[in-house]
Order: sequence, then C-alpha cells, then structure tokens
Amino acid sequence: MDPPCSLYLVGIGPGDPAYLAPAARRALDTCNDWVAYRLYLDLLGPLGDGKQHHDLPLGEEIERARLALKLTLEGRSTALISSGDIGIYAMATLVFELLEGEFSEQANHIQIEVVPGISAVQMAAARAGAPLGHDFCTISLSDLLTPWETIETRLHAAGQGDFVTAFYNPVSRQRDWQLAHAKKVLLDYRPASTPVVIARNLGRDDEKVSFTTLAELDPQRVDMLTLVLVGNSESRMLDNGRWVYTPRGYRKKLNANTALPSEARP
Amino acid sequence: MDPPCSLYLVGIGPGDPAYLAPAARRALDTCNDWVAYRLYLDLLGPLGDGKQHHDLPLGEEIERARLALKLTLEGRSTALISSGDIGIYAMATLVFELLEGEFSEQANHIQIEVVPGISAVQMAAARAGAPLGHDFCTISLSDLLTPWETIETRLHAAGQGDFVTAFYNPVSRQRDWQLAHAKKVLLDYRPASTPVVIARNLGRDDEKVSFTTLAELDPQRVDMLTLVLVGNSESRMLDNGRWVYTPRGYRKKLNANTALPSEARP
Repeated sequence: MDPPCSLYLVGIGPGDPAYLAPAARRALDTCNDWVAYRLYLDLLGPLGDGKQHHDLPLGEEIERARLALKLTLEGRSTALISSGDIGIYAMATLVFELLEGEFSEQANHIQIEVVPGISAVQMAAARAGAPLGHDFCTISLSDLLTPWETIETRLHAAGQGDFVTAFYNPVSRQRDWQLAHAKKVLLDYRPASTPVVIARNLGRDDEKVSFTTLAELDPQRVDMLTLVLVGNSESRMLDNGRWVYTPRGYRKKLNANTALPSEARP
Repeated sequence: MDPPCSLYLVGIGPGDPAYLAPAARRALDTCNDWVAYRLYLDLLGPLGDGKQHHDLPLGEEIERARLALKLTLEGRSTALISSGDIGIYAMATLVFELLEGEFSEQANHIQIEVVPGISAVQMAAARAGAPLGHDFCTISLSDLLTPWETIETRLHAAGQGDFVTAFYNPVSRQRDWQLAHAKKVLLDYRPASTPVVIARNLGRDDEKVSFTTLAELDPQRVDMLTLVLVGNSESRMLDNGRWVYTPRGYRKKLNANTALPSEARP
C-alpha cells in the first residue's frame, strides 16, 4: 500500500507576510497545489508563483476542503490555506468533518499537518495594547451553521463569566441585528464604559483600529471584515484612548505591597 | 523634547524558531537590549548573539517589565520577550499596568509595539487536529493574582456556554487541586466522554501531546508546562484517537442537503 499522503492545513495570519511563520512558508513551498479563496492567494503574492492555484469562491468551503482531500489522495502535495489561524473559525475543522464523513474510508491514507497562524483576535489585541490580558472567549455571531439559541446562550455565559469577548463574523450582508443583540446582552453584565476595540482589515493596507465603549458601539460601523473585541469589566482605556488593556492584577498586588508570586509566562 | 522611544513587546511562539514570525524576528534584530526569562533567551539561541541580555528569574515579572520600561526611557532599543503570545497570559498587560501606575508621567515618551505570537492553545490545537473549530475560551487556573471565586464563576460560565475550554497554568508546584476541581465543574455540563488534549512542552524537543476524556483526565499527569484543552459537548475523537476536532456544523448541513452558506474564513 502506498504510504500516506500529507495534506497541509496552513494559516497564513492576517495577510501581511511579516506574520507568516517560517513553518507556514515552508509548508507552502513544499506544496505544488494550493487550494484557497482567491483573496488569500493574492495576499501571498509572488510566493505563489509557479504553484497550481485552485481558487474556489466564497461559500464553496465544502468543495474547497473536498478538493484538497482529493488532490492529496491523488498523491499531489497539497496545501489548503486560510487567513488567520486555520484552526479558528476556518477550514481545518471542515477537513475533519469530511474525514469522518465521505472520506472515512480513505482517512488512514492521509496525514494532516496543521500549521497555526496569528488569528484576528491576536492582531487586534496587539494593535490595541493588551486587551487579552486575562481570560477571554471568542464567539462567532454567524447563525448560518449554529442555531441562534446556542449563540445567545454563549453571549450570556460570556457575560456571566466576565470574559473578554471577541466577536468573529459580527455582521454580514445578510445579518445585521446579531451584533446589536450581543451588545445588549453584554450590557446586562458589564459597564456601559467597557472599552471595545473595532479592528478592520487587520494586517492589510487599509487596516483601521479604533476604540469605543460598549454603550457607544455602533453596529452600523461594523462590517464582515471587522473583528469586535469587548473588554471585561476591568478593562481600561489608557492615556486618552491610546491603548486598551485588561489588567491581570499585578498592580493590586503591588499596592498591597506583598510578595509578588506570578504564573504569567515570564 | 526627545521623540518617544519604542518598546517592543514580542511573543516568540512556542519556542521552535519555525513559529517565530518575521515581524518578531525583525523586532528582535532591531533591539540591542533583550529582557526575558532565561529559558526564552535560550530558545532564541544564536539569534541573541551580540545582544545585551537581561534575564530576571521566574517570579520577578514586575521587575522585568519595569526594567524594560527603564531601558526604553534611557533611549535604549529594548525588547521585552515572552514565549507564546505576549498578549495572552504574559508580560504585555503588566507593562500597561505599570504605564498606568508608576510610569504614568513618562507614558507619553514611550511608544509600544506589540508583536503577537502563536499561543499554546493554538499549537495544541494544531497538533490535535481542529479542537478549536467552534467558540472557545481560555481560563488560567492560577489563583495567585485572581480570586478563586472569579475562576470558579468562569468555569461554570464555560460549562453553561459549552465553550471549548483551554486551561493555562493548570497546576503548579504550589497548586494541585484546581484542575481536579475544574474537571468536576465541567463534568456537570458536558459528557464524561468529552475529548481532552494534554499538550506538554509544545514546540520544544520533548513535546508530548496525548488525548484522554474528561472523565479520565488525571490531574496528576499534568504539570506547569502543560496546556489542557477540553472539547465542547460536540467535540469528537476521530480515527481511533488520531485526531480531535470540534465540528462547526457543515456535515449537518451537508446531510440536510441544503445550500451551503458559510462564514468560515474560506
């Protein structure tokens, strides 16, 4: 029997090659067949010269994952590419759904190598300061594949747990009320003045990052290329809106003038 | 007045230089003074040749952040370095705590550049398959800076929201009961068979990733270099324990044979 073929699932980060890890670059170099949405192939630019591009359009995610598996089984060296982290709201999970489903009989002929990338929430946080300084959660507001009741439950859980909360897919052309509703839910749990980071087109030429408060968050100003990051009840805007950060509690300890044990990664 | 000085806050990822983004490498190259815990300087190896190393020991996080700010104000090009993502349970937030506190008068002389890195939860997910395929949260089980009641509330919220849950700082030499308690809380909300990923020393030579179930999770097998990632109620172990993934719901749609709209990053 032939040895198993490798399929690389590659997250390329926000788009700027400065955030493309060498491991991702190596995986892309190794592969002759690149399967991706056209925008991501464009972001990779000349790195893709000489590669066989397979760019299925938006909405054809299943077909893209299926094609990547088929090419791999044909013995072609294949990379399936997403922006951000391919494991976070992107294509990786879909490949495993297919491996459990229509590709189950071929699953043991396939090796999967996942190369993570910088996700939008990380890039937004880096631009803002340190809003992810404490426990956080991510919630996709897209109810195309997830029942709205599940999302609603998670919004309340995010509120009850006082998690810093990142909204992926906050709105789309078809969905306009979800973000307003999410805002309303969180306002039941945290102050109107809670800082919010609105980050659009992260790591691309027209990147725009701005701050507002939870009460003033205007869903009309948010589109599908935007990540919305809501602080927890302790998040703070610093130095006249230059930075947003979420304290871990060192200052409290410092003021208490006690010894300073710590388990942050140093 | 002198122009503001830049302090670079750099996340170097798991340790393997294959996950060090070019942006991080560039920031490190730019800076002559590197402030970090010794282990991270070692991980960077020859990249640090010719740099002025300031390696304050574990537990001296405040001093490390303070030193980085002082060096910056002296006009030295300085990088404060953490493994993983410096914005996630690491040093970045501490710098902002100091900028709001004892460095508040100098804050506008300092520019901060944050360079995110691949965090442990992402690396663990990549090794496991796609456990972060749906909404997730991260919780630090360290109660050194956070009251245990806050952590307990978050554990229940993670359970109620059915978030995939990553535990950072699951245990330490001084703390041994928190993970067992966290397991007990989550077992109130999700099945005993829920897959759990145990990932130790990610991206380093002695990396070890194994799977178990929530019921069988043995806190004795977890140490402070381990990340514990608990699936949600739909997470699955696939192909005899080769992979763990959390479906987003495509297969359901596929079976329903409907059109397949999607807002995953394609």
